[in-house]
Amino acid sequence: MATKGQAITCKAAVAWEPNKPLVIEEVQVAPPQAGEVRIKILFTALCHTDAYTWSGKDPEGLFPCILGHEAAGVVESVGEGVIELQPGDHVIPCYQAECKECKFCKSGKTNLCGKVRVATGAGVMLSDRNSRFSINGKPIYHFMGTSTFSQYTVVHDVSVAKIDPKAPLEKVCLLGCGIPTGLGAVWNTAKVEQGSIVAVFGLGTVGLAVTEGAKAAGASRIIGIDIDSKKFDTAKKFGVTEFINPKDYDKPIQQVIVDLTDGGVDYSFECIGNVSVMRSALECCHKGWGTSVIVGVAASGQEISTRPFQLVTGRVWKGTAFGGFKSRSQVPWLVDKYMKKEIKVDEYISHNLTLAEINKAFDLMHDGVCLRVVLNMHA
Amino acid sequence: MATKGQAITCKAAVAWEPNKPLVIEEVQVAPPQAGEVRIKILFTALCHTDAYTWSGKDPEGLFPCILGHEAAGVVESVGEGVIELQPGDHVIPCYQAECKECKFCKSGKTNLCGKVRVATGAGVMLSDRNSRFSINGKPIYHFMGTSTFSQYTVVHDVSVAKIDPKAPLEKVCLLGCGIPTGLGAVWNTAKVEQGSIVAVFGLGTVGLAVTEGAKAAGASRIIGIDIDSKKFDTAKKFGVTEFINPKDYDKPIQQVIVDLTDGGVDYSFECIGNVSVMRSALECCHKGWGTSVIVGVAASGQEISTRPFQLVTGRVWKGTAFGGFKSRSQVPWLVDKYMKKEIKVDEYISHNLTLAEINKAFDLMHDGVCLRVVLNMHA
Ligand SMILES: NC(=O)c1ccc[n+]([C@@H]2O[C@H](COP(=O)([O-])OP(=O)(O)OC[C@H]3O[C@@H](n4cnc5c(N)ncnc54)[C@H](O)[C@@H]3O)[C@@H](O)[C@H]2O)c1
Ligand SMILES: NC(=O)c1ccc[n+]([C@@H]2O[C@H](COP(=O)([O-])OP(=O)(O)OC[C@H]3O[C@@H](n4cnc5c(N)ncnc54)[C@H](O)[C@@H]3O)[C@@H](O)[C@H]2O)c1
Ligand SMILES: [Zn+2]
Ligand SMILES: [Zn+2]
Repeated sequence: MATKGQAITCKAAVAWEPNKPLVIEEVQVAPPQAGEVRIKILFTALCHTDAYTWSGKDPEGLFPCILGHEAAGVVESVGEGVIELQPGDHVIPCYQAECKECKFCKSGKTNLCGKVRVATGAGVMLSDRNSRFSINGKPIYHFMGTSTFSQYTVVHDVSVAKIDPKAPLEKVCLLGCGIPTGLGAVWNTAKVEQGSIVAVFGLGTVGLAVTEGAKAAGASRIIGIDIDSKKFDTAKKFGVTEFINPKDYDKPIQQVIVDLTDGGVDYSFECIGNVSVMRSALECCHKGWGTSVIVGVAASGQEISTRPFQLVTGRVWKGTAFGGFKSRSQVPWLVDKYMKKEIKVDEYISHNLTLAEINKAFDLMHDGVCLRVVLNMHA
Repeated sequence: MATKGQAITCKAAVAWEPNKPLVIEEVQVAPPQAGEVRIKILFTALCHTDAYTWSGKDPEGLFPCILGHEAAGVVESVGEGVIELQPGDHVIPCYQAECKECKFCKSGKTNLCGKVRVATGAGVMLSDRNSRFSINGKPIYHFMGTSTFSQYTVVHDVSVAKIDPKAPLEKVCLLGCGIPTGLGAVWNTAKVEQGSIVAVFGLGTVGLAVTEGAKAAGASRIIGIDIDSKKFDTAKKFGVTEFINPKDYDKPIQQVIVDLTDGGVDYSFECIGNVSVMRSALECCHKGWGTSVIVGVAASGQEISTRPFQLVTGRVWKGTAFGGFKSRSQVPWLVDKYMKKEIKVDEYISHNLTLAEINKAFDLMHDGVCLRVVLNMHA
């Protein structure tokens, strides 16, 4: 490749300051160092974590930065010592690394690899604690170890899932965050069994993926809860069997659900990021065994609470990050499942735009009919 | 039996009012109705739930009542339709019933039988919603379906565990509550594996039973936490390998433990009933997999809280009632384990008194060296 070993100048959406429109800039993307991979990003979607950091509410947000973490692309070049990837490989960059060597990876109990976290949390690369992005020499921070709102990005090799080159990148980019999170919350974290009664709080992309996962697991009833009744039509197509809008009731929503289900649901999932809904999701679970999984990400500083009696009488409170999927091992498996039509992806894409239209894409996220907006990065 | 079918007049400790000394009274104990069993209580221990209800802080406490729920005795007579028990059987009355027929019992997921709960919660028997205890015709409420602070009591047949007649009742009475709760929290609820690092908050009877269970499960480190350093000597004999007194530190105790364990413990158990310790117990767990089990019973109205991020990053919050043991099926198994010297019981008994000395026994519970006080009911 002509670009190998050299900085690449390309377009990226830069967040200069919290809550100010992103600016499409020419950025310099340095070549990958040892253990790093430079990826040409072809398609990226937007997720709420991007919007949250961009809003300035994330106390760990660093500016200026390049956001984005749900994407797909092609390897442009690799740094020293990278043997499992080569230029031309089709890949999904993953904000959740998988080094297969650290205490976490070897535990067999979690997907939360610890290898590069100290660097990705600080917006830099691990080897030299510097950024690979700059504008006229001024460094721009990385975000979540992915920074996919750039035509080229540099990521750690442990964060790259190599996928089937026949998979359409404009679709499978969604397998970088929201869909796996929902499916995995059901399959890996809750382990929903055949015949279970399930409640899904929030019917956005993550809630719909939970619904899809629960349907595949054989749930007998899937109760969808959303304050926006417009969500119901789509949710039905994904498998929701009953719909509840909390605004239609005077009673606490957990009481409504307990009454509807002769004691509560077997599994519940909070897919919003609202701490008071997290409590409802726990308390609508059946005594003795009901398990509630927190999927939504609450704003910093907020706390969940309940009476301990809820747990002493058998309810279990859990959470999930990236649905418990191991990124490098399992994202390719999800891509294969999509190729075999065993999981949906196309149905989660409500809008297609270009990188230049990224601010419009953020605006669309507030729209009730919006699921995922996919940006063509080189249109 | 001469007493069969007739009321028995015997001694019982009656709680006439919250927080007033119990009074030893002559009570009439009516014969068992259909599905009921009258038991001659030989030995009973005192537990914190008795003290809690007696104190008046339990909003569901009913007075006058006969407290007590950790005991052993002999069946005096049985009501109509009771076929699995007969006069002379050695038994442990269990506050947690097991009917083997209700939704809960059949779920295979919980020990919380629902069959008689509506009656035991109301201090009466299920068949006629009346009490079997009276003094000169005035009914005295039952407590937890057991009321073992009486020389004779009437319980539902689904609440009676029939045990090996060779077992010493003055010891195995403890298998009616505290010890199974601690052992089961480890074996059934947390399922601690070989090599695990465990933290035990509170080193009373329940915490010591957790310790014993963790040691039997092969835990590599058992960290005992108590504000009373006098607890340490006994705790060591049960298996605690390290002792922490929170009073010796300025830092939050969860931080102390995370630092000591390279990231946190695999399992933690709250055996106090303090909601702020419940939070510490969760937060001292290792990211990715640490599981915290609430065993202590907090005062009514109190709430637990934490940041949801604790759960999203893989910690699990659970609780346990009677250690998840199915009472009729598994208490006899615990008695057998004791007879085979596979679990301790004698070591949890710090004092032996008589029914007449019950108020002194309650006073002793506040004493740091007190574990269980066993009352001889007919001395
Ligand atoms: N744990 C993880 O690894 C992970 C990964 C991706 C996303 N997330 C989080 O999952 C959450 C959902 O993401 P999404 O993309 O589906 O969001 P979304 O905004 O598309 O969907 C949220 C839905 O919740 C509904 N809602 C809002 N308030 C509600 C309330 N009080 N009661 C009921 N419904 C309510 C909205 O109408 C909307 O339909 C976000 O918090 C996101 O940050 C977590
Ligand atoms: N879940 C159940 O089924 C079940 C069954 C039985 C008992 N319990 C509950 O378990 C709890 C323990 O029972 P027990 O009989 O062992 O009680 P206990 O009073 O003998 O032991 C409690 C211990 O906690 C220590 N302690 C108090 N405050 C502390 C703090 N802030 N930090 C550290 N240590 C502290 C005390 O010094 C004492 O050693 C009680 O709340 C009881 O009601 C629950
Ligand atoms: Zn790792
Ligand atoms: Zn039952």
